[in-house]
Amino acid sequence: MTSTRERIVAATGELFRSQGFNGTSLKQVTEHAGAPTGSIYHFFPGGKEELAAAVLRESGLAYQQLFEMIADESGDIATAMGAFFTGAADALEETDFIDICPIGNVAREVASTHESLRVATVDVFNGWANSIGGRLQAAGIAESDAEELANTIISAIEGGFMLARAHRSTDGLRATGAHVQSLVEAAIST
Amino acid sequence: MTSTRERIVAATGELFRSQGFNGTSLKQVTEHAGAPTGSIYHFFPGGKEELAAAVLRESGLAYQQLFEMIADESGDIATAMGAFFTGAADALEETDFIDICPIGNVAREVASTHESLRVATVDVFNGWANSIGGRLQAAGIAESDAEELANTIISAIEGGFMLARAHRSTDGLRATGAHVQSLVEAAIST
Repeated sequence: MTSTRERIVAATGELFRSQGFNGTSLKQVTEHAGAPTGSIYHFFPGGKEELAAAVLRESGLAYQQLFEMIADESGDIATAMGAFFTGAADALEETDFIDICPIGNVAREVASTHESLRVATVDVFNGWANSIGGRLQAAGIAESDAEELANTIISAIEGGFMLARAHRSTDGLRATGAHVQSLVEAAIST
Repeated sequence: MTSTRERIVAATGELFRSQGFNGTSLKQVTEHAGAPTGSIYHFFPGGKEELAAAVLRESGLAYQQLFEMIADESGDIATAMGAFFTGAADALEETDFIDICPIGNVAREVASTHESLRVATVDVFNGWANSIGGRLQAAGIAESDAEELANTIISAIEGGFMLARAHRSTDGLRATGAHVQSLVEAAIST
Protein backbone atom coordinates (compact mmCIF):
# COMPACT_ATOMS: atom_id res chain seq x y z
CA MET A 1 0.00 0.00 0.00
CA THR A 2 1.68 3.21 -1.13
CA SER A 3 1.29 6.32 1.00
CA THR A 4 -0.27 9.53 -0.28
CA ARG A 5 3.17 11.19 -0.17
CA GLU A 6 4.64 8.41 -2.32
CA ARG A 7 1.78 8.67 -4.81
CA ILE A 8 2.30 12.46 -5.09
CA VAL A 9 6.06 12.10 -5.66
CA ALA A 10 5.59 9.31 -8.23
CA ALA A 11 2.88 11.24 -10.10
CA THR A 12 5.03 14.39 -10.20
CA GLY A 13 8.00 12.43 -11.51
CA GLU A 14 5.86 10.99 -14.31
CA LEU A 15 4.48 14.40 -15.27
CA PHE A 16 7.98 15.97 -15.22
CA ARG A 17 9.19 13.21 -17.54
CA SER A 18 6.65 14.01 -20.21
CA GLN A 19 6.14 17.78 -19.83
CA GLY A 20 8.83 19.21 -17.52
CA PHE A 21 8.65 21.46 -14.45
CA ASN A 22 7.00 24.58 -15.90
CA GLY A 23 4.55 22.49 -17.94
CA THR A 24 3.25 20.68 -14.84
CA SER A 25 0.59 22.19 -12.55
CA LEU A 26 -0.18 21.12 -8.98
CA LYS A 27 -3.76 20.48 -10.11
CA GLN A 28 -2.44 17.89 -12.59
CA VAL A 29 -0.36 16.32 -9.81
CA THR A 30 -3.29 15.82 -7.42
CA GLU A 31 -5.48 14.46 -10.24
CA HIS A 32 -2.74 12.09 -11.45
CA ALA A 33 -1.98 10.94 -7.87
CA GLY A 34 -5.64 10.59 -6.88
CA ALA A 35 -4.88 12.78 -3.85
CA PRO A 36 -6.95 15.52 -2.18
CA THR A 37 -6.13 19.05 -3.42
CA GLY A 38 -4.72 20.27 -0.10
CA SER A 39 -2.51 17.22 0.44
CA ILE A 40 0.51 18.58 -1.46
CA TYR A 41 0.92 21.44 1.02
CA HIS A 42 0.48 18.99 3.92
CA PHE A 43 3.54 17.00 2.81
CA PHE A 44 5.37 19.86 1.06
CA PRO A 45 4.70 23.17 2.86
CA GLY A 46 6.98 24.92 0.32
CA GLY A 47 4.60 23.90 -2.47
CA LYS A 48 5.72 23.07 -6.01
CA GLU A 49 9.39 23.95 -5.49
CA GLU A 50 9.75 21.74 -2.38
CA LEU A 51 7.86 18.91 -4.09
CA ALA A 52 10.08 19.22 -7.18
CA ALA A 53 13.25 19.08 -5.07
CA ALA A 54 12.01 15.86 -3.43
CA VAL A 55 11.24 14.33 -6.86
CA LEU A 56 14.69 15.26 -8.19
CA ARG A 57 16.57 13.94 -5.14
CA GLU A 58 14.56 10.69 -4.86
CA SER A 59 14.70 9.92 -8.62
CA GLY A 60 18.40 10.77 -8.66
CA LEU A 61 19.12 8.36 -5.82
CA ALA A 62 17.09 5.62 -7.50
CA TYR A 63 19.17 5.98 -10.70
CA GLN A 64 22.38 5.94 -8.65
CA GLN A 65 21.30 2.70 -6.97
CA LEU A 66 20.41 1.22 -10.39
CA PHE A 67 23.88 2.09 -11.69
CA GLU A 68 25.55 0.53 -8.63
CA MET A 69 23.52 -2.63 -9.16
CA ILE A 70 24.50 -2.85 -12.84
CA ALA A 71 28.13 -2.17 -11.93
CA ASP A 72 28.06 -4.93 -9.29
CA GLU A 73 26.61 -7.38 -11.80
CA SER A 74 28.97 -6.51 -14.68
CA GLY A 75 32.47 -7.90 -14.68
CA ASP A 76 34.07 -4.48 -15.26
CA ILE A 77 33.18 -0.79 -15.36
CA ALA A 78 33.55 -0.46 -19.17
CA THR A 79 31.03 -3.26 -19.73
CA ALA A 80 28.79 -1.78 -17.00
CA MET A 81 28.66 1.59 -18.78
CA GLY A 82 27.70 -0.08 -22.05
CA ALA A 83 25.01 -2.07 -20.22
CA PHE A 84 23.66 1.11 -18.58
CA PHE A 85 23.15 2.78 -22.00
CA THR A 86 21.55 -0.37 -23.45
CA GLY A 87 19.16 -0.58 -20.49
CA ALA A 88 18.27 3.10 -20.82
CA ALA A 89 17.63 2.68 -24.56
CA ASP A 90 15.35 -0.31 -23.90
CA ALA A 91 13.44 1.66 -21.24
CA LEU A 92 12.96 4.63 -23.60
CA GLU A 93 11.47 2.35 -26.25
CA GLU A 94 9.21 0.60 -23.74
CA THR A 95 7.83 3.92 -22.45
CA ASP A 96 7.23 5.32 -25.97
CA PHE A 97 10.01 7.88 -25.46
CA ILE A 98 8.66 9.60 -22.40
CA ASP A 99 11.75 10.93 -20.67
CA ILE A 100 13.17 8.30 -18.37
CA CYS A 101 15.06 10.94 -16.39
CA PRO A 102 13.03 13.74 -14.77
CA ILE A 103 16.28 15.28 -13.51
CA GLY A 104 17.64 16.06 -16.96
CA ASN A 105 14.28 17.27 -18.17
CA VAL A 106 14.02 19.75 -15.30
CA ALA A 107 17.70 20.71 -14.90
CA ARG A 108 17.86 23.05 -17.90
CA GLU A 109 14.48 24.63 -17.13
CA VAL A 110 15.41 25.65 -13.59
CA ALA A 111 19.16 26.36 -13.75
CA SER A 112 18.73 30.13 -14.11
CA THR A 113 15.36 30.56 -12.38
CA HIS A 114 14.97 28.33 -9.27
CA GLU A 115 18.14 28.25 -7.16
CA SER A 116 16.96 25.55 -4.72
CA LEU A 117 16.20 23.24 -7.65
CA ARG A 118 19.51 24.02 -9.37
CA VAL A 119 21.22 22.94 -6.12
CA ALA A 120 19.11 19.75 -6.01
CA THR A 121 20.19 18.83 -9.56
CA VAL A 122 23.85 19.51 -8.69
CA ASP A 123 23.60 17.22 -5.64
CA VAL A 124 22.12 14.49 -7.84
CA PHE A 125 24.79 14.89 -10.55
CA ASN A 126 27.52 14.87 -7.87
CA GLY A 127 26.11 11.65 -6.41
CA TRP A 128 26.21 10.01 -9.84
CA ALA A 129 29.73 11.35 -10.48
CA ASN A 130 30.89 9.88 -7.16
CA SER A 131 29.45 6.46 -8.00
CA ILE A 132 30.84 6.38 -11.54
CA GLY A 133 34.13 8.04 -10.56
CA GLY A 134 34.63 5.61 -7.67
CA ARG A 135 34.22 2.63 -10.00
CA LEU A 136 36.63 4.19 -12.53
CA GLN A 137 39.22 4.74 -9.78
CA ALA A 138 38.77 1.16 -8.59
CA ALA A 139 39.68 0.15 -12.17
CA GLY A 140 42.99 2.00 -11.83
CA ILE A 141 42.15 5.42 -13.32
CA ALA A 142 43.68 8.40 -11.47
CA GLU A 143 41.25 10.45 -9.36
CA SER A 144 41.20 13.64 -11.46
CA ASP A 145 40.92 11.68 -14.73
CA ALA A 146 38.11 9.59 -13.21
CA GLU A 147 36.21 12.72 -12.16
CA GLU A 148 36.48 14.23 -15.65
CA LEU A 149 35.50 10.99 -17.35
CA ALA A 150 32.50 10.54 -15.02
CA ASN A 151 31.31 14.03 -15.93
CA THR A 152 31.64 13.30 -19.66
CA ILE A 153 29.70 10.05 -19.21
CA ILE A 154 26.84 11.88 -17.45
CA SER A 155 26.83 14.49 -20.24
CA ALA A 156 26.62 11.74 -22.85
CA ILE A 157 23.75 10.05 -21.00
CA GLU A 158 21.71 13.25 -20.60
CA GLY A 159 22.41 14.54 -24.12
CA GLY A 160 21.78 11.07 -25.48
CA PHE A 161 18.34 10.94 -23.83
CA MET A 162 17.50 14.31 -25.39
CA LEU A 163 18.45 13.18 -28.92
CA ALA A 164 16.70 9.82 -28.56
CA ARG A 165 13.46 11.51 -27.51
CA ALA A 166 13.70 14.06 -30.33
CA HIS A 167 14.45 11.40 -32.96
CA ARG A 168 12.10 8.84 -31.39
CA SER A 169 14.91 6.36 -31.99
CA THR A 170 17.51 4.81 -29.70
CA ASP A 171 20.04 4.00 -32.47
CA GLY A 172 22.17 7.02 -31.57
CA LEU A 173 21.97 6.39 -27.83
CA ARG A 174 23.15 2.80 -28.31
CA ALA A 175 26.09 3.98 -30.45
CA THR A 176 26.93 6.62 -27.84
CA GLY A 177 27.02 3.85 -25.22
CA ALA A 178 29.61 2.04 -27.36
CA HIS A 179 31.65 5.26 -27.65
CA VAL A 180 31.52 5.75 -23.87
CA GLN A 181 32.57 2.15 -23.35
CA SER A 182 35.58 2.67 -25.66
CA LEU A 183 36.56 5.87 -23.81
CA VAL A 184 36.53 3.96 -20.51
CA GLU A 185 38.52 1.06 -21.98
CA ALA A 186 41.10 3.50 -23.38
CA ALA A 187 41.41 5.29 -20.02
CA ILE A 188 41.90 2.00 -18.17
CA SER A 189 44.55 0.69 -20.58
CA THR A 190 46.75 3.82 -20.43
CA MET B 1 17.88 48.67 -38.01
CA THR B 2 16.38 45.37 -36.90
CA SER B 3 12.84 44.56 -37.94
CA THR B 4 10.02 43.85 -35.48
CA ARG B 5 10.05 40.20 -36.55
CA GLU B 6 13.77 39.93 -35.85
CA ARG B 7 13.34 41.55 -32.43
CA ILE B 8 10.55 39.11 -31.55
CA VAL B 9 12.61 36.08 -32.59
CA ALA B 10 15.71 37.33 -30.73
CA ALA B 11 13.73 38.13 -27.56
CA THR B 12 12.06 34.72 -27.61
CA GLY B 13 15.43 32.98 -28.04
CA GLU B 14 16.82 34.85 -25.03
CA LEU B 15 13.80 33.99 -22.87
CA PHE B 16 13.95 30.32 -23.93
CA ARG B 17 17.62 30.22 -22.95
CA SER B 18 16.96 31.28 -19.38
CA GLN B 19 13.49 29.83 -18.67
CA GLY B 20 12.53 27.40 -21.44
CA PHE B 21 9.42 27.07 -23.60
CA ASN B 22 6.72 26.49 -20.98
CA GLY B 23 8.22 29.13 -18.67
CA THR B 24 7.97 31.85 -21.36
CA SER B 25 4.75 33.76 -22.01
CA LEU B 26 3.91 35.76 -25.15
CA LYS B 27 3.42 38.80 -22.87
CA GLN B 28 7.05 38.49 -21.77
CA VAL B 29 8.12 38.23 -25.42
CA THR B 30 6.39 41.43 -26.52
CA GLU B 31 7.69 43.30 -23.47
CA HIS B 32 11.24 42.01 -23.98
CA ALA B 33 11.12 42.80 -27.71
CA GLY B 34 9.51 46.21 -27.24
CA ALA B 35 6.85 45.14 -29.75
CA PRO B 36 3.08 45.77 -29.81
CA THR B 37 1.01 42.98 -28.23
CA GLY B 38 -0.70 41.94 -31.46
CA SER B 39 2.50 41.85 -33.52
CA ILE B 40 3.36 38.24 -32.69
CA TYR B 41 0.18 36.99 -34.40
CA HIS B 42 0.90 39.26 -37.39
CA PHE B 43 4.23 37.53 -38.05
CA PHE B 44 3.31 34.14 -36.55
CA PRO B 45 -0.39 33.38 -37.12
CA GLY B 46 0.10 30.03 -35.35
CA GLY B 47 1.07 31.87 -32.17
CA LYS B 48 3.59 30.58 -29.63
CA GLU B 49 4.16 27.23 -31.33
CA GLU B 50 4.91 28.79 -34.76
CA LEU B 51 7.13 31.43 -33.14
CA ALA B 52 9.00 28.73 -31.17
CA ALA B 53 9.59 26.67 -34.33
CA ALA B 54 11.10 29.75 -36.04
CA VAL B 55 13.37 30.39 -33.05
CA LEU B 56 14.54 26.77 -33.00
CA ARG B 57 15.22 26.62 -36.75
CA GLU B 58 16.96 30.01 -36.93
CA SER B 59 19.11 29.44 -33.80
CA GLY B 60 19.96 25.95 -35.02
CA LEU B 61 21.12 27.27 -38.39
CA ALA B 62 23.22 29.98 -36.71
CA TYR B 63 25.02 27.33 -34.62
CA GLN B 64 25.57 25.19 -37.68
CA GLN B 65 27.14 28.15 -39.50
CA LEU B 66 29.33 28.88 -36.45
CA PHE B 67 30.53 25.27 -36.45
CA GLU B 68 31.31 25.41 -40.20
CA MET B 69 33.30 28.62 -39.63
CA ILE B 70 35.32 27.07 -36.79
CA ALA B 71 35.89 23.93 -38.87
CA ASP B 72 37.11 26.04 -41.83
CA GLU B 73 39.53 27.92 -39.59
CA SER B 74 40.89 24.86 -37.75
CA GLY B 75 43.46 22.68 -39.44
CA ASP B 76 41.55 19.46 -38.76
CA ILE B 77 38.17 18.26 -37.46
CA ALA B 78 39.53 16.92 -34.14
CA THR B 79 41.02 20.33 -33.30
CA ALA B 80 37.83 22.04 -34.52
CA MET B 81 35.69 19.99 -32.12
CA GLY B 82 37.95 20.90 -29.19
CA ALA B 83 37.75 24.58 -30.23
CA PHE B 84 33.95 24.41 -30.45
CA PHE B 85 33.70 23.16 -26.83
CA THR B 86 36.18 25.79 -25.61
CA GLY B 87 34.24 28.54 -27.36
CA ALA B 88 30.97 27.30 -25.89
CA ALA B 89 32.50 27.18 -22.39
CA ASP B 90 33.76 30.75 -22.78
CA ALA B 91 30.32 31.90 -23.96
CA LEU B 92 28.59 30.23 -20.99
CA GLU B 93 30.90 32.04 -18.56
CA GLU B 94 30.42 35.38 -20.31
CA THR B 95 26.61 35.09 -20.15
CA ASP B 96 26.60 34.03 -16.46
CA PHE B 97 25.46 30.53 -17.43
CA ILE B 98 22.28 31.44 -19.21
CA ASP B 99 21.79 28.62 -21.67
CA ILE B 100 23.64 29.31 -24.90
CA CYS B 101 21.47 26.85 -26.79
CA PRO B 102 17.71 27.43 -26.82
CA ILE B 103 17.28 24.24 -28.85
CA GLY B 104 18.55 21.95 -26.11
CA ASN B 105 16.62 23.79 -23.45
CA VAL B 106 13.36 23.38 -25.36
CA ALA B 107 13.94 19.95 -26.93
CA ARG B 108 13.24 17.90 -23.81
CA GLU B 109 10.25 20.02 -22.81
CA VAL B 110 8.41 19.56 -26.08
CA ALA B 111 9.44 16.05 -27.23
CA SER B 112 6.30 14.37 -25.87
CA THR B 113 3.88 17.31 -26.01
CA HIS B 114 4.32 19.50 -29.15
CA GLU B 115 4.85 17.41 -32.28
CA SER B 116 5.65 20.35 -34.62
CA LEU B 117 8.39 21.49 -32.24
CA ARG B 118 9.78 17.98 -31.83
CA VAL B 119 10.09 17.87 -35.63
CA ALA B 120 11.81 21.29 -35.63
CA THR B 121 14.41 20.07 -33.10
CA VAL B 122 15.01 16.91 -35.14
CA ASP B 123 15.60 19.01 -38.28
CA VAL B 124 18.11 21.14 -36.37
CA PHE B 125 19.93 18.12 -34.91
CA ASN B 126 20.02 16.49 -38.37
CA GLY B 127 21.53 19.68 -39.83
CA TRP B 128 24.26 19.65 -37.21
CA ALA B 129 24.85 15.91 -37.70
CA ASN B 130 25.23 16.48 -41.46
CA SER B 131 27.79 19.25 -40.92
CA ILE B 132 29.83 17.34 -38.33
CA GLY B 133 29.42 14.00 -40.11
CA GLY B 134 30.50 15.51 -43.42
CA ARG B 135 33.70 16.86 -41.87
CA LEU B 136 34.39 13.48 -40.23
CA GLN B 137 33.92 11.69 -43.55
CA ALA B 138 36.23 14.20 -45.24
CA ALA B 139 38.84 13.15 -42.63
CA GLY B 140 38.53 9.56 -43.80
CA ILE B 141 35.95 8.11 -41.38
CA ALA B 142 33.42 5.71 -42.95
CA GLU B 143 29.90 7.13 -43.42
CA SER B 144 28.07 5.03 -40.79
CA ASP B 145 30.84 5.55 -38.21
CA ALA B 146 30.82 9.29 -38.95
CA GLU B 147 27.05 9.48 -38.43
CA GLU B 148 27.27 7.68 -35.09
CA LEU B 149 30.19 9.78 -33.92
CA ALA B 150 28.43 13.02 -34.93
CA ASN B 151 25.42 11.97 -32.86
CA THR B 152 27.63 11.24 -29.84
CA ILE B 153 29.32 14.64 -30.21
CA ILE B 154 25.95 16.43 -30.26
CA SER B 155 24.88 14.44 -27.17
CA ALA B 156 28.08 15.46 -25.38
CA ILE B 157 27.55 19.13 -26.31
CA GLU B 158 23.94 19.22 -25.12
CA GLY B 159 24.53 17.17 -21.97
CA GLY B 160 27.67 19.20 -21.29
CA PHE B 161 25.71 22.47 -21.45
CA MET B 162 23.20 21.06 -18.96
CA LEU B 163 25.88 20.05 -16.45
CA ALA B 164 27.81 23.32 -16.84
CA ARG B 165 24.68 25.35 -16.13
CA ALA B 166 23.77 23.19 -13.12
CA HIS B 167 27.30 23.36 -11.68
CA ARG B 168 27.83 26.97 -12.73
CA SER B 169 31.27 25.83 -13.87
CA THR B 170 32.71 25.00 -17.29
CA ASP B 171 35.50 22.71 -15.99
CA GLY B 172 33.54 19.59 -16.92
CA LEU B 173 32.53 20.94 -20.33
CA ARG B 174 36.14 21.72 -21.20
CA ALA B 175 37.22 18.20 -20.15
CA THR B 176 34.37 16.74 -22.22
CA GLY B 177 35.68 18.70 -25.21
CA ALA B 178 39.06 17.01 -24.73
CA HIS B 179 37.37 13.59 -24.54
CA VAL B 180 35.44 14.30 -27.74
CA GLN B 181 38.63 15.43 -29.46
CA SER B 182 40.33 12.16 -28.44
CA LEU B 183 37.39 10.11 -29.75
CA VAL B 184 37.65 11.88 -33.11
CA GLU B 185 41.43 11.41 -33.24
CA ALA B 186 41.04 7.70 -32.44
CA ALA B 187 38.37 7.28 -35.15
CA ILE B 188 40.58 9.00 -37.75
CA SER B 189 43.66 6.93 -36.92
CA THR B 190 41.93 3.54 -37.17
